[in-house]
Amino acid sequence: MHPISRFEEVIEKEYFPGFKGRMIHTHHMTFALWKIEAGSILPLHHHPHEQVVQMIEGEFEMILDDQKIKLQSGDILIIPPNAPHEGKAMRACKVMDIFSPRRQDYMD
Amino acid sequence: MHPISRFEEVIEKEYFPGFKGRMIHTHHMTFALWKIEAGSILPLHHHPHEQVVQMIEGEFEMILDDQKIKLQSGDILIIPPNAPHEGKAMRACKVMDIFSPRRQDYMD
Repeated sequence: MHPISRFEEVIEKEYFPGFKGRMIHTHHMTFALWKIEAGSILPLHHHPHEQVVQMIEGEFEMILDDQKIKLQSGDILIIPPNAPHEGKAMRACKVMDIFSPRRQDYMD
Repeated sequence: MHPISRFEEVIEKEYFPGFKGRMIHTHHMTFALWKIEAGSILPLHHHPHEQVVQMIEGEFEMILDDQKIKLQSGDILIIPPNAPHEGKAMRACKVMDIFSPRRQDYMD
């Protein structure tokens, strides 16, 4: 494979209502660049992958292990493996999620 | 630990000549945000960690497995585990490296 990837070259897909993403999968990680519409809801869920949320733009309210966390530009949130989390985009957001191990369930 | 991290809150350290970095370590990954001076040399090396290079600003010439690769803003380079790589900052750069598994050797 060509060693360079760019998010612009990946097809954007609406994975959940209001969550449009572009994904790059590597050996050990999945990089997901999201554009999230204001008001979009992330339903409560969990997964065995560690998730690191990098807030690029906007404001997202996450509830992680029953703790309410307001995320803004520059914030990095570490969601441990299997930790239940849910949230809401308080404004339109741009977010990069990095998962490890990679999200085999998103590789179709 | 508090679930939110920010690179500004991490102490910057010159890990190699011309390479100033701030690191955030998670369960499975290490995030390293680098400011690299123009002309700085990355000597040939390898490590068992997968490395994903995200070019934010500048221009960096990497040699990966004997292939010369010019990296510019927006490029994402996947360096497989154990792949020998070396490089040079052709201009001042801002780069995010993500390693998995995490760089235990940088956690001191």
